[in-house]
Amino acid sequence: MSFHKIIDSRNIKLFTNLGRSKGNYLFDSNGKKYLDMYGNIGSLPVGYNHKRLQELNLESPEIKKLLIHRPALGVNPPIEWKKHVELLYKNYSPGGLDFMYVACGCGSGANENAFKAAFVKFARNNYSEHSMEDRLKTALDNREPGSPNISILSFKKGFHGRTMGCLSTTRSNAWHKINIPAFNWPVAPFPQLKYPLHKNELINFLEEEKCLDETVKILKENKTIAGMIIEPIQAEGGDRHASNDYFIKLRQLALDEDVTFIVDEVQTGVGSTGKLWGYEYWSDDKKYLPDIMTFSKKMQMSGYFCKSEYKTDSPFQTFNTWMGDPFKVILSNEIYKIIADEKLLENSTTTGEYLMRELLELEDKTGKIRNIRGKGLFIAFDCDNSILLKERLIENNINIGTCGKQSIRIRPSLILSKKDVDFFIYKLKKSLL
Amino acid sequence: MSFHKIIDSRNIKLFTNLGRSKGNYLFDSNGKKYLDMYGNIGSLPVGYNHKRLQELNLESPEIKKLLIHRPALGVNPPIEWKKHVELLYKNYSPGGLDFMYVACGCGSGANENAFKAAFVKFARNNYSEHSMEDRLKTALDNREPGSPNISILSFKKGFHGRTMGCLSTTRSNAWHKINIPAFNWPVAPFPQLKYPLHKNELINFLEEEKCLDETVKILKENKTIAGMIIEPIQAEGGDRHASNDYFIKLRQLALDEDVTFIVDEVQTGVGSTGKLWGYEYWSDDKKYLPDIMTFSKKMQMSGYFCKSEYKTDSPFQTFNTWMGDPFKVILSNEIYKIIADEKLLENSTTTGEYLMRELLELEDKTGKIRNIRGKGLFIAFDCDNSILLKERLIENNINIGTCGKQSIRIRPSLILSKKDVDFFIYKLKKSLL
Repeated sequence: MSFHKIIDSRNIKLFTNLGRSKGNYLFDSNGKKYLDMYGNIGSLPVGYNHKRLQELNLESPEIKKLLIHRPALGVNPPIEWKKHVELLYKNYSPGGLDFMYVACGCGSGANENAFKAAFVKFARNNYSEHSMEDRLKTALDNREPGSPNISILSFKKGFHGRTMGCLSTTRSNAWHKINIPAFNWPVAPFPQLKYPLHKNELINFLEEEKCLDETVKILKENKTIAGMIIEPIQAEGGDRHASNDYFIKLRQLALDEDVTFIVDEVQTGVGSTGKLWGYEYWSDDKKYLPDIMTFSKKMQMSGYFCKSEYKTDSPFQTFNTWMGDPFKVILSNEIYKIIADEKLLENSTTTGEYLMRELLELEDKTGKIRNIRGKGLFIAFDCDNSILLKERLIENNINIGTCGKQSIRIRPSLILSKKDVDFFIYKLKKSLL
Repeated sequence: MSFHKIIDSRNIKLFTNLGRSKGNYLFDSNGKKYLDMYGNIGSLPVGYNHKRLQELNLESPEIKKLLIHRPALGVNPPIEWKKHVELLYKNYSPGGLDFMYVACGCGSGANENAFKAAFVKFARNNYSEHSMEDRLKTALDNREPGSPNISILSFKKGFHGRTMGCLSTTRSNAWHKINIPAFNWPVAPFPQLKYPLHKNELINFLEEEKCLDETVKILKENKTIAGMIIEPIQAEGGDRHASNDYFIKLRQLALDEDVTFIVDEVQTGVGSTGKLWGYEYWSDDKKYLPDIMTFSKKMQMSGYFCKSEYKTDSPFQTFNTWMGDPFKVILSNEIYKIIADEKLLENSTTTGEYLMRELLELEDKTGKIRNIRGKGLFIAFDCDNSILLKERLIENNINIGTCGKQSIRIRPSLILSKKDVDFFIYKLKKSLL
């Protein structure tokens, strides 16, 4: 049996020659070279074969033992686990979120457990009229009150993963959801802004107010909403932005209605937008911090930071066998050092701004691209036919992704340089002809 | 902030000194030595620091590049991915299951995607009266017919994971489920047999027939059941066994009713029961093969084997960013070589039989343990107070797990020797005094 018969390879675009790839440039199995503006669907933090990662000695006893074993970190972790966890928290934690869950294998696992933490907190305040005996008995039967009919509110075009809890909050693409049962959870509108943002402030403000009003109404009418989940920039849904003002008002609304505010930073996190976490743009005021902030992708593993009140009542409620992977935590800590030492947040901001300017200029000159939007290196634009443009770009040595039939999304690693941008713009011009 | 404040460490029993641990013996952070009869919750395949795994050269270019990157295997996999996947399939696939999904981070991910594959197949045959347009539109809103009200049948005391689809099929412990919404999916009885099995054949046969009759009734009455999921031995639920005859009849029932038959080998797989997969005990007849067989734990990564008809209609339905982890596949292939070369399936059988005999003798002599049950090294017994006995065993240098208040479960690695068994029995006797 051969590869393409054994596994589902329908989405595979090219095979990477990882040994030869370097920085932002990847080589495919035929030796063709590409500027990688897609970065393993936004999960490549510091390019290919970064010198500092190559210097990691995987044969050193302290690393090797964590790689040839897969310890059950929740019951018998290795001694070193403490040190790695403390460093991870020091590196990445948003001040004010005291608790960390680094115990899952993918972004969906992070969101599933975040939902569970929100549900457990909600139930703590809302089910005291039922006896514990009754709640435990009915929980085993998937019936109320033990299995309460409570929900997570998500937003139109949001994407939060593909396991069945997550999938019930995902609204980006019906093909992810069709034929799979879903919880009957509510959805709120997400602002559809006009781009470029600085030229459309009034109309965008009105759109955001309309969406907020609708969300208030949903929350007032539905008292079984335990939490809401939102992306700082909707990614899979088409790179849809909203203003800092919108997010602050939404966060305040969650506080007013006592609903857990979950921010999904799986795609926006770890410098993609120019800040370590995308929500940092909203406000410096600690009161607007998320209750729970989930991560994955560029972190190389997944989990969440949260307020300590989101520690579940029973340690088994967010438990699993492996509870993560210690080497991925080491890798994530190494990546943090690179980001800090090479000032990659600043690079994401300045190179991103340069790329935005170049794209706006290209729009002015050609009229063939439009709705250019971005923060840091998290950038997208629209065109007449994104599938066709993507194919031409790949022909012209640019690896890139689409979102929907009209948008091209740019998700490079944080080390993208102005020179890379110039190469990209040159190739984009050529592909637009 | 320190470790115990940052993460939920309530389940941590001891910290392992991985560097010093060897074979079936682990050292904790205080230098105390234990015979490990728990094996990282059944996920340690070949003991600690196996010579062959130590010989893996992690600094070799072909391995290192897969460790310092985390490629998106579904879109831009490394060239080597083909080779590793083909070998994995060759090593572990049950003949007759043509398709493999190795694309998730934990056992729950494997089961969630198996459910999705079963749902997609069910809908392929059952929703043709609705227009595709209507199905896609309603799927985005979590409404029928796009989000159909269909289900997975599970069995009392079954355990299949903790994400929200999986958790709806988990019935082992209410504390895993309380306060978390669940799909209102059906449950069937699982036989509660009397042990030892060979002394209770008639009464056990009658119990199994009663459970099968009840299951037939549930399937006949409920035409929205897309699949059923069952463990070859219920593990978390208390090591509950059923006969080969029971499983064959159940599998035939699934064929008759056109319901996907999913076998969860997360805990029973990779030699634990003396065969590579636990279902192999049931029959040599290919027609009794599972439709889908999920794995994790001793495999070091998770996924499933299935019939090729379970390839989903859209490649996005069982997609995610990383689609697994290539190094874990290499590790799994190395472990297979060790299992084959050291005849560890045979060892699991013979050492397991020896341990069973010793336990039965201890029951006869002391009357302090009972209901001894097992296959290969997958063994459990009951006692008056499992929590207390476990504590005494840990004091007496045996690392071990419980299931429930009455059962002790034994989940060693496959290299357990008769000498290790003698040490265990000696310590168990001492702990029972």
